[in-house]
Amino acid sequence: MTLDKNWFSEQHADAGSAFSLKIKKKLHEEQTPFQHIEIYDTETFGKLMVIDGCYMVTSRENFIYHEMMAHPALFTHPDPKKVLIIGGGDCGTLREVLKHRDVNQAWQVDIDEAVTRLSEKYFPELCVSNGDGRAELLFEDGIKWIQESEPGSLDIIIVDSTDPVGLAKGLFGEAFYRSCFHALDADGILVHQSESPLYHPKLLKSMHKAMHKAGFNATKTHHFPQPSYPSGWWSATMACRENTGLDGFREDDVRNKIFKTRYYNADMHKAALAQPEFCKEAGLG
Amino acid sequence: MTLDKNWFSEQHADAGSAFSLKIKKKLHEEQTPFQHIEIYDTETFGKLMVIDGCYMVTSRENFIYHEMMAHPALFTHPDPKKVLIIGGGDCGTLREVLKHRDVNQAWQVDIDEAVTRLSEKYFPELCVSNGDGRAELLFEDGIKWIQESEPGSLDIIIVDSTDPVGLAKGLFGEAFYRSCFHALDADGILVHQSESPLYHPKLLKSMHKAMHKAGFNATKTHHFPQPSYPSGWWSATMACRENTGLDGFREDDVRNKIFKTRYYNADMHKAALAQPEFCKEAGLG
Repeated sequence: MTLDKNWFSEQHADAGSAFSLKIKKKLHEEQTPFQHIEIYDTETFGKLMVIDGCYMVTSRENFIYHEMMAHPALFTHPDPKKVLIIGGGDCGTLREVLKHRDVNQAWQVDIDEAVTRLSEKYFPELCVSNGDGRAELLFEDGIKWIQESEPGSLDIIIVDSTDPVGLAKGLFGEAFYRSCFHALDADGILVHQSESPLYHPKLLKSMHKAMHKAGFNATKTHHFPQPSYPSGWWSATMACRENTGLDGFREDDVRNKIFKTRYYNADMHKAALAQPEFCKEAGLG
Repeated sequence: MTLDKNWFSEQHADAGSAFSLKIKKKLHEEQTPFQHIEIYDTETFGKLMVIDGCYMVTSRENFIYHEMMAHPALFTHPDPKKVLIIGGGDCGTLREVLKHRDVNQAWQVDIDEAVTRLSEKYFPELCVSNGDGRAELLFEDGIKWIQESEPGSLDIIIVDSTDPVGLAKGLFGEAFYRSCFHALDADGILVHQSESPLYHPKLLKSMHKAMHKAGFNATKTHHFPQPSYPSGWWSATMACRENTGLDGFREDDVRNKIFKTRYYNADMHKAALAQPEFCKEAGLG
């Protein structure tokens, strides 16, 4: 069966697959100085944001991604207070980070202000914490920002980036991870979205390697479903400096958390860290 | 972006989404007495079997589904010797079942012989155990077969069916589950593919309810990625008669198993049983 013009499809580079949503209407389209952004109203997934042809966010299922970018790292760190998000312009990760009441400062550094302005308009539920006194939204180059940040000044760095092409390419490598390493304190944790375990095992392997070379003590990938991303199966990779291991986490704090999540909980934290046999064999853990 | 005629798309009923693979060539197409079957050669997923417009099997990623249909149930049962597969005509589940050396009889009852003949031709790797002396391949109505089977004669029933429309509709309900209950012995376990936790929560809930009404003591859903199925996230639901719980499993036997798997292992067994927060809240566990 072929799809008519009422569908928006993302062809997954090199994977020979595509994911499509049925569209009611195109709501917005613009070329910013950095990228091409489209917003659609879909039949069943709510709103959809597309950047350079790739699915970024849908109203229906972004909760899985945003929760899994934030909570595993924040509940692994013993006491995260200062959190930096690089990218994440839709503000969904920021919202999850600020659910942690002990976080007292969170910077979101996305190079493209348009992403945030469009999210405020079309995904207001992701932007409910943008006015939080602890949040600072900056529209700058994240690589530069982290190079200039004070050594040891951050507890968590979340790299909520697009795929490793174009703008985001510089975020997937040893030099950038080394800047992150220096900006984190000894308990610090870096977490970076790390694409599909099925489609991108080489990238995943290179991320682990680059994180270790940059000085991180241990790395670990966790998995989660994300229907609108290539293969519908996604991952994020954590790296820790010297003091904090990645196997344990503040399990009691998760079980007693006073905020709501829709995907994440203590059981899912452990489950996400389990490695399928082919990942173990490929050294992707 | 729209997809041209080089792509085969499955539109997911009611979900407003579609998954597509880039096609090199259509290899076969036939209308059997029961259903419409197509076989394609794809760019990157190997061979693809489509039944009534729905993705059934691709060479690249069927291993996840087939392993997760077989091993969790077989390693939960204390000593499975007699296994019935209803549906499963591609023989991939049978192959996984027969990796267990203590299984001494396995029946595969699929109503449509054409599925198996086509699988033998286009997915020979799934059919490597078809000639195993312990295997019996029957092309009959599974519902009737199980109604006529001797009470208490089976250890495991695996319902490897298509979606709950058309042919497979009768497999998703209390009457069928009651037949399964009677055919199983007291340690017996039923496992049925149970669609997408994101797209089909109502169906999942009704399956749990019907299994309990049919007499089963406990039920439990496990999750796994399956890129070519709707939402890319799939599930199977186990139900046990009186003696066997579903929380524990023969973990040492999994760790010491002498056969290879590519997805399943002891950690993934536990991980697959973890319930995301929204599943817990909806009573889908």
